[in-house]
Amino acid sequence: MKAEIIAVGTELLMGKVVNTNAPFLARELNALGVDHYFETVVGDNPNRIQEVTRLAEQRSDWIIFSGGIGPTQDDLTKQTLAAYLGEELVYDSTYLKRIEAHYQKRHIALTDKGKQMAYTFKRGVTLGNPKGQACGSAIKKKGHTYIFLPGFPHELKAMWRESVVPYLNPSQEEVMTSRYLNFYGIFESALADKLDDLIVHQENPTLAIYSAEGIVTVRLTAKGECLEANAGILEDMTRQILDRLAPYYFGEGYGLTPVKALLDDLMAKHQTLSFAESLTGGMAGERIVNYSGASRAFQGSLVAYTAEAKQRVIGVEAKTIESVGMVSEQCALEMAEKTRQRYQSDLTISFTGVAGPDEMEGHPAGTVFCGFAFKDRPTHIESYHLSGDRQTIRQRCLFQACFDVWKMRSQKSSQ
Amino acid sequence: MKAEIIAVGTELLMGKVVNTNAPFLARELNALGVDHYFETVVGDNPNRIQEVTRLAEQRSDWIIFSGGIGPTQDDLTKQTLAAYLGEELVYDSTYLKRIEAHYQKRHIALTDKGKQMAYTFKRGVTLGNPKGQACGSAIKKKGHTYIFLPGFPHELKAMWRESVVPYLNPSQEEVMTSRYLNFYGIFESALADKLDDLIVHQENPTLAIYSAEGIVTVRLTAKGECLEANAGILEDMTRQILDRLAPYYFGEGYGLTPVKALLDDLMAKHQTLSFAESLTGGMAGERIVNYSGASRAFQGSLVAYTAEAKQRVIGVEAKTIESVGMVSEQCALEMAEKTRQRYQSDLTISFTGVAGPDEMEGHPAGTVFCGFAFKDRPTHIESYHLSGDRQTIRQRCLFQACFDVWKMRSQKSSQ
Repeated sequence: MKAEIIAVGTELLMGKVVNTNAPFLARELNALGVDHYFETVVGDNPNRIQEVTRLAEQRSDWIIFSGGIGPTQDDLTKQTLAAYLGEELVYDSTYLKRIEAHYQKRHIALTDKGKQMAYTFKRGVTLGNPKGQACGSAIKKKGHTYIFLPGFPHELKAMWRESVVPYLNPSQEEVMTSRYLNFYGIFESALADKLDDLIVHQENPTLAIYSAEGIVTVRLTAKGECLEANAGILEDMTRQILDRLAPYYFGEGYGLTPVKALLDDLMAKHQTLSFAESLTGGMAGERIVNYSGASRAFQGSLVAYTAEAKQRVIGVEAKTIESVGMVSEQCALEMAEKTRQRYQSDLTISFTGVAGPDEMEGHPAGTVFCGFAFKDRPTHIESYHLSGDRQTIRQRCLFQACFDVWKMRSQKSSQ
Repeated sequence: MKAEIIAVGTELLMGKVVNTNAPFLARELNALGVDHYFETVVGDNPNRIQEVTRLAEQRSDWIIFSGGIGPTQDDLTKQTLAAYLGEELVYDSTYLKRIEAHYQKRHIALTDKGKQMAYTFKRGVTLGNPKGQACGSAIKKKGHTYIFLPGFPHELKAMWRESVVPYLNPSQEEVMTSRYLNFYGIFESALADKLDDLIVHQENPTLAIYSAEGIVTVRLTAKGECLEANAGILEDMTRQILDRLAPYYFGEGYGLTPVKALLDDLMAKHQTLSFAESLTGGMAGERIVNYSGASRAFQGSLVAYTAEAKQRVIGVEAKTIESVGMVSEQCALEMAEKTRQRYQSDLTISFTGVAGPDEMEGHPAGTVFCGFAFKDRPTHIESYHLSGDRQTIRQRCLFQACFDVWKMRSQKSSQ
């Protein structure tokens, strides 16, 4: 089975929008075991859309379109393909009602342009859009499957998971279940080496490995008669993988980061968290508050970027800065402990170090000290030597510290 | 003139890497006035690379390849095209020496795979790579121009600006100069309307408009005999544009944000900055410290995400929180003033509001109050009503506040 992705949108060709849908779809196709050799971007132009479709038909079985199913003049992907395939579009009545209600609520007149969001192929199926107004659609014809998805990434992802995967699932009698296992502190290639025999002999579940921001994720996808059967298959493979990789593991779930894993653990235990940030400059707080509901655990952060601010705002001793400097174990320790007292937190993590590009206090870029101050045990200091640009050093330092604290906490609670 | 982009790399098709080169090249082609209707992604496979090249030749004059010019087994873009075009590759002696020195310094044996980074077309030209080891190359044949660029975005961008633009510049005797004018608080379409006649009649300089994170940028590109002539052309057009759009303007420069504009102004005046962050959770500090050298102005940030932390850490009055709540003018005012006193800053900006998705204290998501506390004038409060997801509301609030403070300061200093 071969698939190919066609992203439609002049805004992509103008470079106004980065095509993040293609990598998402690529990973999904990969996990389904579907080959995928080409991706194309084309503008909102019927002739050119037909031209690339004709070409895709020569190379692939599934042709997946993203974009051009919204309510504007430029949105004409479904219409163009209907004309090309000689197929009829009709309004999906459920979506038409949803769209009418949506416009009415906002006191906007509903024109034909708005209604076209409810277009679906008469001889095809509607693909549900849990996050937006425009429905997707899919149609099979002469050995090809044509799939129409929205351009907005959050809509596309939701539609893919909820509607497209069940539709594409080749053996309709089977159910597919995926599980995501997340690892930190190991390179993708090293992790793949440790699972080599499992990857080579994979059948059910299938394994896919990918990485982002230093996190390596193993996705297991099981196919079986029912969810219970899949759960058993996944559990068995998970155990085999964790037997080999437990030291790097920090939990399961799509998109999990060490920051989120630590936040989840704190929230589950009704504990509180604060940060003392020099190196990270506010990034620790910023990443935490991206999670809705973070305020149940996260209290705040003292960001002190200069020596003076570290003394005046956090209360680091002047003699510490004079004797061992800001990039030191002692400074990390004082930052963590004094900030914890200020917020009265169960846990405070401090970050001090050199983001670069230049060295500081004689330390090369990437030298980092983190303090972990706890309510119920002695403060712990870690030092890291990280590489990358300023932004990468900060992000890696945050993830590494959260991973290490998460590990300490999980080992303590399992004792 | 038509151009088309072919990104080569199995990692792109696996969805491991997002193709950010294509939007960059798209904007650049746009600015050069070159049409651009298709983009293709293809894996590291000689047959498929040749297949998409054949197709691109039917549609476009310039064919721009990104990726596949590095030192690994998979890097075979130049070799594949050399075979396809019946052209010879030779080592560029300058690059070969650079590569040899690079490997020697790292005590790594230099194999043929490493040397291939110095490949250039014998009958073509070498494109310099200011940020990496692999040189680019370009060759013209039978009406087509083939351009080979690296896959790493920072290398590709640097090579484009320094080597490709001069190479492609159709009239070799002219010099091109670009200037970027940045605006905030106006939609891209509204800005384009105001410049409609200038856009329609553009010749020299050419105008290109694009937007990101709410910033709208107008790029002017002048072609002339010398840099001085271009400066005059650009100055004249800049004046015409600012006559119409001055209220939204916050400075010139590639990639300028309102945060950076404010930071630059503070550094120029040897003044200091701190933040009091609730809504933004650390983002204000995080964005500032992305700029190397930020510590010359930025002192730090008090992040207080809970009511308790606002009282204990910043010193907001309990009665303020009880009577008008955390999402209020009074809370924004106390946050800014008390934090300014703590850091002894020339300027403190506070952020409090509702990121959503749920409402808070009866205020809908997107309600934001910011306080601007100055050393030398009374505190000023602004309220904003922003839309978008959590992350967008935070980012827009930060940019809007920095823009408003920058404007206040620039108006004051011009009085």
